[in-house]
Amino acid sequence: MGYLKKVNYNMTAYLTRREQFNAAHKLWVKDWTDEKNKEVFGKCANKNWHGHNYTLFVTVKGQPHPQTGFVMDAKKLSQLIQKEITSKLDHANLNLDVDFIPKDLQPTTENLVILIWKQLEPLISDCQLHSIKLHETDNIYAEFFGEF
Amino acid sequence: MGYLKKVNYNMTAYLTRREQFNAAHKLWVKDWTDEKNKEVFGKCANKNWHGHNYTLFVTVKGQPHPQTGFVMDAKKLSQLIQKEITSKLDHANLNLDVDFIPKDLQPTTENLVILIWKQLEPLISDCQLHSIKLHETDNIYAEFFGEF
Amino acid sequence: MGYLKKVNYNMTAYLTRREQFNAAHKLWVKDWTDEKNKEVFGKCANKNWHGHNYTLFVTVKGQPHPQTGFVMDAKKLSQLIQKEITSKLDHANLNLDVDFIPKDLQPTTENLVILIWKQLEPLISDCQLHSIKLHETDNIYAEFFGEF
Amino acid sequence: MGYLKKVNYNMTAYLTRREQFNAAHKLWVKDWTDEKNKEVFGKCANKNWHGHNYTLFVTVKGQPHPQTGFVMDAKKLSQLIQKEITSKLDHANLNLDVDFIPKDLQPTTENLVILIWKQLEPLISDCQLHSIKLHETDNIYAEFFGEF
Amino acid sequence: MGYLKKVNYNMTAYLTRREQFNAAHKLWVKDWTDEKNKEVFGKCANKNWHGHNYTLFVTVKGQPHPQTGFVMDAKKLSQLIQKEITSKLDHANLNLDVDFIPKDLQPTTENLVILIWKQLEPLISDCQLHSIKLHETDNIYAEFFGEF
Amino acid sequence: MGYLKKVNYNMTAYLTRREQFNAAHKLWVKDWTDEKNKEVFGKCANKNWHGHNYTLFVTVKGQPHPQTGFVMDAKKLSQLIQKEITSKLDHANLNLDVDFIPKDLQPTTENLVILIWKQLEPLISDCQLHSIKLHETDNIYAEFFGEF
Repeated sequence: MGYLKKVNYNMTAYLTRREQFNAAHKLWVKDWTDEKNKEVFGKCANKNWHGHNYTLFVTVKGQPHPQTGFVMDAKKLSQLIQKEITSKLDHANLNLDVDFIPKDLQPTTENLVILIWKQLEPLISDCQLHSIKLHETDNIYAEFFGEF
Repeated sequence: MGYLKKVNYNMTAYLTRREQFNAAHKLWVKDWTDEKNKEVFGKCANKNWHGHNYTLFVTVKGQPHPQTGFVMDAKKLSQLIQKEITSKLDHANLNLDVDFIPKDLQPTTENLVILIWKQLEPLISDCQLHSIKLHETDNIYAEFFGEF
Repeated sequence: MGYLKKVNYNMTAYLTRREQFNAAHKLWVKDWTDEKNKEVFGKCANKNWHGHNYTLFVTVKGQPHPQTGFVMDAKKLSQLIQKEITSKLDHANLNLDVDFIPKDLQPTTENLVILIWKQLEPLISDCQLHSIKLHETDNIYAEFFGEF
Repeated sequence: MGYLKKVNYNMTAYLTRREQFNAAHKLWVKDWTDEKNKEVFGKCANKNWHGHNYTLFVTVKGQPHPQTGFVMDAKKLSQLIQKEITSKLDHANLNLDVDFIPKDLQPTTENLVILIWKQLEPLISDCQLHSIKLHETDNIYAEFFGEF
Repeated sequence: MGYLKKVNYNMTAYLTRREQFNAAHKLWVKDWTDEKNKEVFGKCANKNWHGHNYTLFVTVKGQPHPQTGFVMDAKKLSQLIQKEITSKLDHANLNLDVDFIPKDLQPTTENLVILIWKQLEPLISDCQLHSIKLHETDNIYAEFFGEF
Repeated sequence: MGYLKKVNYNMTAYLTRREQFNAAHKLWVKDWTDEKNKEVFGKCANKNWHGHNYTLFVTVKGQPHPQTGFVMDAKKLSQLIQKEITSKLDHANLNLDVDFIPKDLQPTTENLVILIWKQLEPLISDCQLHSIKLHETDNIYAEFFGEF
């Protein structure tokens, strides 16, 4: 028992859970002309939408519990992400369908990681949210670490 | 020179080129009610669309050329796929935007591999088209080998 | 309508669904000495078991349905695999816990693909089971195509 | 020679080596009833064990050596990890077989990264251990950066 | 015992082993001018070489052994591939260093799969070599199934 | 509009772009004997070179732009990396062909990430370069965060 304390006491580990969702979106500023939208956003401004298989990584940090060895129960983390995030984003249109994405904000990966952080951060107790990472393709991903 | 012939003569190798595109789609039968569409297609029937990062594998077969060692120049195969297929599908809406996808056909992976075969097969000479494979997600892919 | 028939009629496409499970096993012939088991199976004969993240690919073939575009509904295929296979294999001991794995048969990937085929093949109608592929690690996988 | 010093002097780079092992484990608190173990750990509490293909990433940091360009010889790092860690964990039972895993500590990924750090950290000289990352599945991984 | 026979008798399973090697090569026909080499092979004709991380998949087929459950011992298959193939190709120059690659043959993936087949096929007994697959990049791979 | 400011104001997100190149290199110190080179660098000292498929990750950080949602236009980041880095490294010999790699510096992944940082850092404005990560194989990668 003394040993367990020695092993875990004051040691901070990080736990990451991966989830996935498939969604449609486009990048489009209403106040701009079609030409300016095409110029800035290229193919991403296609009016008929395009889409991605998004891969989301949520990382929490804290001290592993002496008995369970969990920073946080990975299954409960998964359920939380599914309830609050991926059930709303999966097979959705990110410009139109999601309550926590403002209609006048571009659904870029950079904005999405900030918005997902804002949804999850207040709901995580006992340990701390450390980062949100979101892959839009194999070539592009964004991260947010709560830096204001 | 006799050796080269011995090495390659009458030997059939297969060459595969991978390409990628990101697109939106939905599964929806016009003649059905909303309820029936939801019942059959589930979340894939979301009226506001959803999307995927598609990964396409095109395989050709033939005898490696004695001098170049190519069944087909992989760069030319890539250019052909980009010109005929991915330039039309990338950042597109598969239900609305693509000339070679009939409007009354569901853009499922199964139908897409058949339609892509039909586009590419007549354009490949010197060697033969062997298969079209298309990943819609990490969990689902379809293949077509030209079986009529 | 004539078009739809032309597109799909008599064309055979293949649809693959990936599922995953994590399991323990060991390779051990009861009739052999410990030495012979170690000699033949190496570290795989560890009496205290070891385990793997298995990745399973189930491929069916058939003609895409004219209205749905499905060879088989991928969600129903997933549910079938989960009910019959992965719910029994996930977080299980492949030597001890699984009703359809004979106790005197080594749970090698080669034997597992045959056993999984036998479970699924009678349950697939409208289309045909084509292959079972099972990855034990990134370096080793087995396949079965129903060849007797 | 002055150039080399300018290039490398006081610059800290990070080098990561990936290794893999396959192991069995279960999550189980001896002092709890079977019911409580099932309630807390779910399928991970299966008495007959389950297992995973673990992927381990060990990161060291330091200044690249002016002549070799190495923060640390990656082959020697690999040999160290294999000698001290993966030769003990591969094809092992993490609850029963490993000298550096206390018997009364859950072999969760969070606890494992801390234990692996403790094994390796005293053995790395010339450069510094920066982090241990361990994937249990594609969906779950833990990290430890030596934070006490 | 009768059961074992029923399970395995006359059933053909396929076993695949993955191996990797890193090598340099260039594509260059001696009888051609520099201009023609550049025109046909593009960047692959760089006189100073370029290189790849190659991933090799060797597939054998046969009936799982009634006692071991092996089509072939995957460890022995790995040792064979390492002895005959990857120990010769790893960290080698494919145009200059490898005894079984003719000097006047382009080291394309298509030619390499045929040459690797020729090395391994005579050395596999008890079961049969089914295919050689070689990835040159994530985007290009070749296969050979022994078709003459 | 006030909302947009609240969402983005003073929030730092990270954007990563992946690019790839294939190159040859060897590790070799001119002042050493062949024996010492072999002893220190092993197979990496093969005089006839070897090569890799390198995967490069460039990460920038900054505040997403209120209208575009971009920390930096990922397409422009890609074009910058291709112009300054991968067009020079792809299908090149890292010891001989690249203007920004000093001839007397080993082209290890550790040195390469520092050299790539030095090329890109002065060219990124509006946001900041955060890190360079370079995979030489699936098993080895290096990172540089600008730490002097």
